Amino acid sequence: MTLDPLFRPRTVAIIGASDKELSIGYRILSNLSTYGFHGEIYPINPKTESILNHKTYPSIMDVPGEVDLAHIVLRNTMVPGVMEQCGEKAVKAVIINSAGFKEIGPDGAALEEEVLRIARENGIRVFGPNCQGVMNSDPDVSLYSNFTFTPLRPGGISIIAQSGGVGEVLNNRLLELGAGVRLYASNGNACDISIPEILRYMGSDKGTRAIIVHIESLADPKDFLFAAKEVARIKPVLAMKSGRTDEGAKAVCSHTGMLMQQHVITNLIFEKSGVISFTSHEDLCQAAIGFASQPVPKGKGVGIITNTGGPAIIATDELIEGGLEIPQLSEKTRESLTPLLHPAASVNNPIDVLATGTPEHYSASLKALLAEESVHSVLLHFVTPFFVDCPAVAREVATIGQDTTKPIVCVAMTNKETWADTLATVRGSGIPTYDFPETAARVLAQMTRYGIFRDKTQQKTIDEPYDADRQRANDIMASAEKSGPLSAEKAFSLLECYDIPVVPWRLAAKTSEALDTVEEIGYPVVLKVDSPEVIHKSDAGGVILNIKNAKDLRKKLELMEASFQFEGRRFLLQQYKTGGIEVIVGAKAEENLGHVLMFGLGGIYVEILKDVAFALSPLTKVDAEAMMGKIKSAPLLEGARGRSGADLDSLGDILVRLSQLLSDFPQIKEIDLNPISSVPPPGMTAVLDARIIL
Amino acid sequence: MTLDPLFRPRTVAIIGASDKELSIGYRILSNLSTYGFHGEIYPINPKTESILNHKTYPSIMDVPGEVDLAHIVLRNTMVPGVMEQCGEKAVKAVIINSAGFKEIGPDGAALEEEVLRIARENGIRVFGPNCQGVMNSDPDVSLYSNFTFTPLRPGGISIIAQSGGVGEVLNNRLLELGAGVRLYASNGNACDISIPEILRYMGSDKGTRAIIVHIESLADPKDFLFAAKEVARIKPVLAMKSGRTDEGAKAVCSHTGMLMQQHVITNLIFEKSGVISFTSHEDLCQAAIGFASQPVPKGKGVGIITNTGGPAIIATDELIEGGLEIPQLSEKTRESLTPLLHPAASVNNPIDVLATGTPEHYSASLKALLAEESVHSVLLHFVTPFFVDCPAVAREVATIGQDTTKPIVCVAMTNKETWADTLATVRGSGIPTYDFPETAARVLAQMTRYGIFRDKTQQKTIDEPYDADRQRANDIMASAEKSGPLSAEKAFSLLECYDIPVVPWRLAAKTSEALDTVEEIGYPVVLKVDSPEVIHKSDAGGVILNIKNAKDLRKKLELMEASFQFEGRRFLLQQYKTGGIEVIVGAKAEENLGHVLMFGLGGIYVEILKDVAFALSPLTKVDAEAMMGKIKSAPLLEGARGRSGADLDSLGDILVRLSQLLSDFPQIKEIDLNPISSVPPPGMTAVLDARIIL
Repeated sequence: MTLDPLFRPRTVAIIGASDKELSIGYRILSNLSTYGFHGEIYPINPKTESILNHKTYPSIMDVPGEVDLAHIVLRNTMVPGVMEQCGEKAVKAVIINSAGFKEIGPDGAALEEEVLRIARENGIRVFGPNCQGVMNSDPDVSLYSNFTFTPLRPGGISIIAQSGGVGEVLNNRLLELGAGVRLYASNGNACDISIPEILRYMGSDKGTRAIIVHIESLADPKDFLFAAKEVARIKPVLAMKSGRTDEGAKAVCSHTGMLMQQHVITNLIFEKSGVISFTSHEDLCQAAIGFASQPVPKGKGVGIITNTGGPAIIATDELIEGGLEIPQLSEKTRESLTPLLHPAASVNNPIDVLATGTPEHYSASLKALLAEESVHSVLLHFVTPFFVDCPAVAREVATIGQDTTKPIVCVAMTNKETWADTLATVRGSGIPTYDFPETAARVLAQMTRYGIFRDKTQQKTIDEPYDADRQRANDIMASAEKSGPLSAEKAFSLLECYDIPVVPWRLAAKTSEALDTVEEIGYPVVLKVDSPEVIHKSDAGGVILNIKNAKDLRKKLELMEASFQFEGRRFLLQQYKTGGIEVIVGAKAEENLGHVLMFGLGGIYVEILKDVAFALSPLTKVDAEAMMGKIKSAPLLEGARGRSGADLDSLGDILVRLSQLLSDFPQIKEIDLNPISSVPPPGMTAVLDARIIL
Repeated sequence: MTLDPLFRPRTVAIIGASDKELSIGYRILSNLSTYGFHGEIYPINPKTESILNHKTYPSIMDVPGEVDLAHIVLRNTMVPGVMEQCGEKAVKAVIINSAGFKEIGPDGAALEEEVLRIARENGIRVFGPNCQGVMNSDPDVSLYSNFTFTPLRPGGISIIAQSGGVGEVLNNRLLELGAGVRLYASNGNACDISIPEILRYMGSDKGTRAIIVHIESLADPKDFLFAAKEVARIKPVLAMKSGRTDEGAKAVCSHTGMLMQQHVITNLIFEKSGVISFTSHEDLCQAAIGFASQPVPKGKGVGIITNTGGPAIIATDELIEGGLEIPQLSEKTRESLTPLLHPAASVNNPIDVLATGTPEHYSASLKALLAEESVHSVLLHFVTPFFVDCPAVAREVATIGQDTTKPIVCVAMTNKETWADTLATVRGSGIPTYDFPETAARVLAQMTRYGIFRDKTQQKTIDEPYDADRQRANDIMASAEKSGPLSAEKAFSLLECYDIPVVPWRLAAKTSEALDTVEEIGYPVVLKVDSPEVIHKSDAGGVILNIKNAKDLRKKLELMEASFQFEGRRFLLQQYKTGGIEVIVGAKAEENLGHVLMFGLGGIYVEILKDVAFALSPLTKVDAEAMMGKIKSAPLLEGARGRSGADLDSLGDILVRLSQLLSDFPQIKEIDLNPISSVPPPGMTAVLDARIIL
C-alpha cells in the first residue's frame, strides 16, 4: 500500500484541534492553514464552533466527507477509542502525535500494541505515536502536517528523522543555506509505518532528488538494508546515526526504548547499500544541497577555476584526499584558451583567471573545462573583487550552468549581504554556492564516489550464484544436529562442496586404519583427536604437529587411543603445512540481518592489534578484494621487500564462496576458518582448521 | 621593535591614493575614513586637491606631520624611489600593497631585495609587498588599513592569513556567525614583518583572546615554532595549513614562490608548540568563537542539559570520541535537583528537563552542574518549544553565564529569525550558540585539550637537561671528521656518554687481541669488521652472528683478516642478543628547525607497514611516551596474550637522552639506532647497532 494518504492526503482531520495558541492541536491546524493545504481541513473539537476560521466538528464521525489522514492529539488513554471511530469512518492513515506509549515503559507499550491491533483490524496505517508528523512541499499538495516552526519551502531534499529535534535542526539549517525541503517525516515510536517504508516512498517520489536519513537505532536492519539498497541505486541517500560510542548508545536506549544496535553493523549496512554516511549535520546538509541541485559526476576528473590563489590550494588538498583527480588540460584546450585570458593568467588546472578575471574570462574557462574529456566536474572559485563586474560574471556562469550535464559547484567568497543578488543569480541556475573551498571539494568528492557506486550497482548487483555441489551440501546439513558444532568431517566436507580448498585430510576410527590411510596424503602430518567430547583439543593434548613417519605416528596414535576413550572418537590426519601467511576468515549471524563476515591476518594481528575488517554477506569478488584491502596489515598480503605475500585471488574466492554457503544455509550461526594458510602460486592456499556452529 | 606603528599608528599616509572608485588606492582611503580611523589620514596624489573630503598631498615629503604608517599603492618599479622618500620622512612602517615582486620571478625578487635594503638602511619596517594590509578594531584605533570589504566589528579573535583570499573568507564567516575580529593581518610576500612576529604581537595584545593563523608555507620554521610556543602558552592559537597533499603543495609553490615544506613537519611544529590544527575553515571559525568567548575548561568532565533527546545523544558521541567524560552526578546533587524539575525529568548527566523545561528548570539544572566538582564545562541544549517562555529561559541562562568560571556553550536549535532576540540574549552573556550538538561538542573538546596542554606547559616546559658526560662527548665529537659517519667506537662511546645503553662491545685490531678481550663480554658474540672502507658490512660478509666459542671465533677472525686487508681495519665484538622486541629510533636534522625524531618497531612494521611516529626534538619523558603510543603496533610494545612486550621505561629514557644529545650537537645530520633490542625488566634494553652521520 502506498503512503499517499500520509503524504498526499485529499483531506486532513485534527482530532484534538484546539483554540489555545500554545497547544499542539492549534499549531497543526495553524500550519496546515498557513501553508495553504490544497485539500479540506477538519478540526475535531466538541467544545468550539470554529478555530482559525475553520468549522469544527464534535467528532470524526460528524465529518461530512471522506478522511484520508487524521492527526490524533489526545491523552494517550483516549487514543484506542478514537482509533475505533477512525476505523468506522474508514480513515486511511493517522498521525498519532500524542506521547505516552512505548517510550514510557510496559504500560505504554501495551497501549501501543492495542492501538496497532485496532489499526490493523480496520486497515488504518499509523504514523507515530509520540511523533512530530509529516510535510510535503509539492505545490499540488502543500501539506504541513506537523507542529514545528520551520517554514515550508519547496526543494529537492527529503528528510526522514527518527528524532524530531534533529529533523527540525536539519530542516532549519537547509532553509538557512537557501535550500528547500520536499518531503519531511519524523515518525517517533514508528509502531507501523517504518523508516524503510518511508525511504522507499521517497525513492519513488519524483520531486525528491536526495534523501537525508537520521537514525538512532534500526528496528529492522534487514528491511532497512533492502530498502536503502533499492533506493540508493536510483537516488543519493545521506545518513547519520547517533549512538556511535558506548555512552551515546546508552543514551539511545533510554531515548527510544529499543535494544542497542552496534554502530559497526549500521556502518556495514550503509556501506553495503551505498548509503553515504556522515558524522556532522553541517556536512550532511551541505552535501545534500550539492546532490539535490547538480548531476552526479561521471568520473574523478575535476577542473578548477579561481581568481585567487589560496583557496584553490585548499580545494586541491581536499579533492586529492577525497580520491579525485585534477587532470592536466590537453594541449589543444590550453592553446585555444590562452589567447582568451589575461597574459599573466595560469592556463592550467587550476585555471587562475587572476583577480581581474572578467565575465569573458570566466565564461571561456568554464566552457573549456566542460568541453575537456578528462574533466567530469567543475569547481569554480569566485572572490568578488570590487573592480570586476561581478554580477556579469555570475550571469555568464549561470547561463552555462543551466545546460551542463557535468556538475558545477561554486565557492563564493564574498559578503553575502552586499552580493546577495549576485549569489542568487548563480544559485538560480542550480549551481550551489559554498563558503569554503574545502566544503565544496568534500561535497564534490562525495558526489563522485556516489556516482562510481551507482554505475557499479547499475551494471551488476551481485556475482552469479557459485556453482556449488548443493545436493551434497544439503545432505550434510540434513544429517547434522539442529544446533551445536559440526564434526570436523562434516565441516571440511561442507567447505569442499563450495570448492573452498581444505588441506588434504583423512579420518580414521583407530590406529591401524589411520596408518593405512595416511599414505594417501603423505608425511609430515598433523594428528588431531576428533570427538564432540573434546572441545579444547590443543589444551587436552589432542593435537600433534609435524609427525614425520609411520613409526612416530603409530606411537602418537597409541597414546591418543589411551587418552581419549570416548564413544565414536576418531582421528583426523592432515597434511602438515608451514611457511604460508596465516589468515583468519570468520562469519557470524546477526539477528534479523544476515551474516557479518570477518577477515584478518592470524596471530598478533588479530589477537593483539585487532586488525580485522568486516563486511555484510553476500560478497562479490570485488567486495572481497575491497574487504581484504581494508586491514592495516594489507601490505603484508601483497608481499614486499623480498617477503612473499598471500594468494589474494584464492583468498578472495574463499570469501565469495563462503558467503554463498552462508546464503544457502542461513541456519549457520558462526563459522571460523582459522587459520587459512596462503602461499602465492604455485604455492597453495587452504583451510587448516574450521569450526562451524549451527 | 614593536609593531605598534603598523597596528596602532597615529597617522596613515596612502601613497597612490586615487579618486577612481574601483582602485585600491581609493578603497583603502575609503575604508580608513568609513570605519573612523582615530588618527590623521594623508592621501598622497599629485594630481588632485582632495579625495573623499581628505586633503591630498603631492608627495609624502609634503605631509605636515609625522607619518607612522604609509601604504604604497604604485607600480612595482616606482616603489624603491618612494621608499627612499619614506626614509627621509622617517616613516616608521609601510604596507606595500603593490604586486610585481618575488611572486613574478627573479626580476621581482631583485626589486624586493632592493626595497628591503632601503627599508633597513632607513629603519622602516615593511609589511608585504603583494599584500592586503591590516586592521585593528580596538575602538581607540579603528584602523581599516586594507582594501577588503568585510565590515570591521570589534571582537576577541585575531587573524593572520598568508593568503588574502583565505583571510577575507575567515573574516566574513566570523562576522556571519556573529563574532568580531580584533587584529587582522595578511602580509603577502612577507619580506620583512613575518608571521611569527605578528603572532607574538597578537599574543601581547590585550584585546586578543584567540588567534587564527592560516599558512601556506613556513619561511622560517624554527622562528614560527618558538613564537607559537611562546604565544600558545598564554592564548589559544588555531591554525590551518594549505598544501597537505603533493598536488596542493605544488600549488603552494607556484602561488607563493617558496620551496615546498612537508606537511608532516608543519604538523609536528603545531603539535610541539601547542597550536590547535584544523583542516576546515568552518570548524576553525566555530572553535575560535568558543575560545574567544569562554574560559578554558579545567578538566574533562562535561555536564549536559537538554530539552530534547536526540541531540544530546549526538553530543555524547562527539564528546566521548573527543576524549571528554560525562560524569555521573553526585547523589547530593541529584537529591537536591530532583524536586526542582518535572517529575518525569531525567536527573542524570545528561539532565533532560523535557520539552516543557521552564526557565526555573534550566536555571536549577545549570546551577547544579556548575556547582558539581566533577563537571568542568557545560553543554546546554535548547530547542525553543512554542509552549515555553523561551526568552525567559535565555535570560536565566545569560544571568548565570555572565559570572561563571566554568565554560558554558549552547546548542540553540531554533529558527534564527524568529528567535533572534532570544539568541542575542544568550550570546550577550558571552555564551556562544551553535546550530548543531556535534559542533558545540567538538569545540568543547578542543578547548578542553588546549586547557590540558596549557596546564602542562605552564608547569614545566621541558625536563631538566640530562646529566651527561659532556666533557667526553665533546672530546669524541672534536676528534671526529667534520662530516660523514662516525666510527662504531665513536658512535657507541658517544651514546654511552648519555647513558644510552649499548650492548657490551669490544674493539680489537687483530685476532689475538680479539681472543683476549672477548672474555670480558662473554660468548655467544657477534663479530663485525670495522673499517670506513666497508660500508655494507653484511653484504660483504663482514658480520657473523652467534659465535659460541673461542675455536669458532678464531676461525672466523682469521677468515676476516684475510678478506679485509685495509689500513686501520679493526674487529668489533658484541654480545649476541636474541628474543627481545626490536625497535628503531632515528633522527634527522631539518634545515632551520632542529631534529625530527622517528620511532617504530623493526622489521616488517617499519619496512612494509611504515608504522612509525615522528616528533620534534627535544622531548620530555611524557612526550616520549606519547610518541611511542602513537604507532599502530603500540599494543605489541605493551605485550598481551602471553607475549612479553618491551621495556617502555628504558625506551622512553633512550628517546629523551638521544634528544639531549642532539640538542648538544646540532651538527649531527642523521642518527639511526637500529635495532634496539628490548626485554622488560629484569631483561635488558640496549642498542645493537648505531649509525651517526655528521
